Amino acid sequence: MLEHGGKLRQAATRYGLPVEDWLDLSTGINPNGWPVPEIPSACWARLPEDDDGLEQAARSYYGAEHLLPVAGSQAAIQTLPRLRPQSRVAVLDPGYAEHAYAWRNAGHEVTGVAAERLDEVVQDSDVLLLIHPNNPTGARFSVEQLLDWHTRLTARGGWLVVDEAFMDITPERSLCAYSARPGLIVLRSLGKFFGLAGARVGFVCAHPALLAQLHSLLGPWSVSAPARWVATSALADRAWQDAARQRLGAEGARLHTLLARHGLNPDGSCALFQWVRMPDAQDLHEALACQGILTRLFIESSSLRFGRSQLPASRDTCASLRFGRSQLPASRDTCASLRFGLPGDEIAWARLDAALSSVTVRHPDEAVL
Amino acid sequence: MLEHGGKLRQAATRYGLPVEDWLDLSTGINPNGWPVPEIPSACWARLPEDDDGLEQAARSYYGAEHLLPVAGSQAAIQTLPRLRPQSRVAVLDPGYAEHAYAWRNAGHEVTGVAAERLDEVVQDSDVLLLIHPNNPTGARFSVEQLLDWHTRLTARGGWLVVDEAFMDITPERSLCAYSARPGLIVLRSLGKFFGLAGARVGFVCAHPALLAQLHSLLGPWSVSAPARWVATSALADRAWQDAARQRLGAEGARLHTLLARHGLNPDGSCALFQWVRMPDAQDLHEALACQGILTRLFIESSSLRFGRSQLPASRDTCASLRFGRSQLPASRDTCASLRFGLPGDEIAWARLDAALSSVTVRHPDEAVL
Repeated sequence: MLEHGGKLRQAATRYGLPVEDWLDLSTGINPNGWPVPEIPSACWARLPEDDDGLEQAARSYYGAEHLLPVAGSQAAIQTLPRLRPQSRVAVLDPGYAEHAYAWRNAGHEVTGVAAERLDEVVQDSDVLLLIHPNNPTGARFSVEQLLDWHTRLTARGGWLVVDEAFMDITPERSLCAYSARPGLIVLRSLGKFFGLAGARVGFVCAHPALLAQLHSLLGPWSVSAPARWVATSALADRAWQDAARQRLGAEGARLHTLLARHGLNPDGSCALFQWVRMPDAQDLHEALACQGILTRLFIESSSLRFGRSQLPASRDTCASLRFGRSQLPASRDTCASLRFGLPGDEIAWARLDAALSSVTVRHPDEAVL
Repeated sequence: MLEHGGKLRQAATRYGLPVEDWLDLSTGINPNGWPVPEIPSACWARLPEDDDGLEQAARSYYGAEHLLPVAGSQAAIQTLPRLRPQSRVAVLDPGYAEHAYAWRNAGHEVTGVAAERLDEVVQDSDVLLLIHPNNPTGARFSVEQLLDWHTRLTARGGWLVVDEAFMDITPERSLCAYSARPGLIVLRSLGKFFGLAGARVGFVCAHPALLAQLHSLLGPWSVSAPARWVATSALADRAWQDAARQRLGAEGARLHTLLARHGLNPDGSCALFQWVRMPDAQDLHEALACQGILTRLFIESSSLRFGRSQLPASRDTCASLRFGRSQLPASRDTCASLRFGLPGDEIAWARLDAALSSVTVRHPDEAVL
């Protein structure tokens, strides 16, 4: 298993701060997600049924002809590698690490590829795997470019897999409308934009033959009935979606501005997160954690970068971290980065602002931190 | 995919009766399940976390040293066959069909075995798979007998897999306390006794090495956060559990008596269902469906019996079914059976009673139906 953002409980224990005192910016989840009403009790009592309206609502929302509900994109990430013989898999790097991990675990030959080199590796790959927009770098590609890659891959029986977990704010860039074409697989999820990460609902949009194989491997009832009910309603709520798109766009810009004001100029972003590369990323991560603000730290490791949540063992470490970082070896600082999610309310915004001020004030000689 | 009970929506369409007008006795789910309170909104918004108390509550409730939460036993059923090389798998027959289906799909050699022959096939099997108490026959085995089979299997690297989906009413018969032994795998679920089939929460109780393999294949976050929260509370609610055990015991006896009064003498049972073998099972299934009562029909098919939900195409067929079954070929009637779940309230009890009366009144010449 890889480590992930959202490990708030773990951070709470390590830093000795109760869970409820933390400001968790470690995920890219909308902090003001779709408001879930009370769940009809029948949803808990009865087995989920396929013909409950979920697929119809999802087809309409995503503009995809064929799709399969899955227990979050993670279920598809775990299972897709089982549907191919050993393949050469090019994975956008840096990027959400579960993809590379799953393909490698299933015995495929996985290569991490920088965004600039994707076009050149297509010819030597069986599968090209992108997160789009990318997490954490925010990298984007044109629909034409993606469809060209798909055409070149599928001509040799290859696949283009696009994880569109953060696509909801820019639906015009989605490949869902093309996903009935063989060899094109688009993953969607209600975790980020809808803020329903706990519900475990995602969709695979693809050719029906592939969906049938996937369904057979996943088996029946993999998405819970309450989650199906919530997802059906959220996907149909166009008024909420429009308002959320507007709000998140404005808040993404606000977070970008706030970070830049503290000398943290984002190197990439999407409305739901800002990504900052900096040599001192780990120090800043820890200094903020000492103030109860959890961010997501990425440190390069071998050919693929994996996120790490290295935390000091106790609050005792915090005091020294606030005042200096001389105890940290310089070598590990290369290629580190931080991802900031959106604060959920004005108190949270003010808290982040104040924390960044206090940290930078303590290091007056440095441009950053 | 196999067909299953609980296909109420399908029945509603075929018989032209709205879903809400049906009395669904087609499952073995407690119709008065654990009362789910309102879910904290954070459960929907945040990714599920491993250290939220669920595993601790489950270990205490099941008396198992090591366990892994899964998205219903079905997730384990789909995945366990991937953890062994090609094996000879003996499956209790008749029994819940998903087990045999999954092992066969994964390339194993599966043989259906009657309860009486289990002891003799152990020596020639790598895996013995039981539902205990069995669904739909209600067959039971002593703990000593099961542990003896386990010892003999594990001596050769084999497995005993016991699906205890219906065990909650008789916890003293569970093998959970022994499940840390290598080669013993016990499946539990909150679907039946707790009446939380929609939540998709189950547990695999087994040796930690096997659980780690299973966890790696299933990946993170396979159980939704609201379901984890509900399950944690339900597993800790001893007062509800005690009351439910008493109530279900009494209701099981009541259903047995009711059926017997109509000439339907159960051939097997557990508190949550009664199982009746009868040549006319399909006719009675259809006659009851015409009155909006859904039962579960089993018809033998090849070496393993699979449940079927054969329904007439329209309500037009219903009139004739109420008055006679001469149009049905006699040959298909062999080895058919019906499973009746518990009615949920007095109105439902009265409705079943009246429906059975009306059906038997129309066939005065026959002992049954």
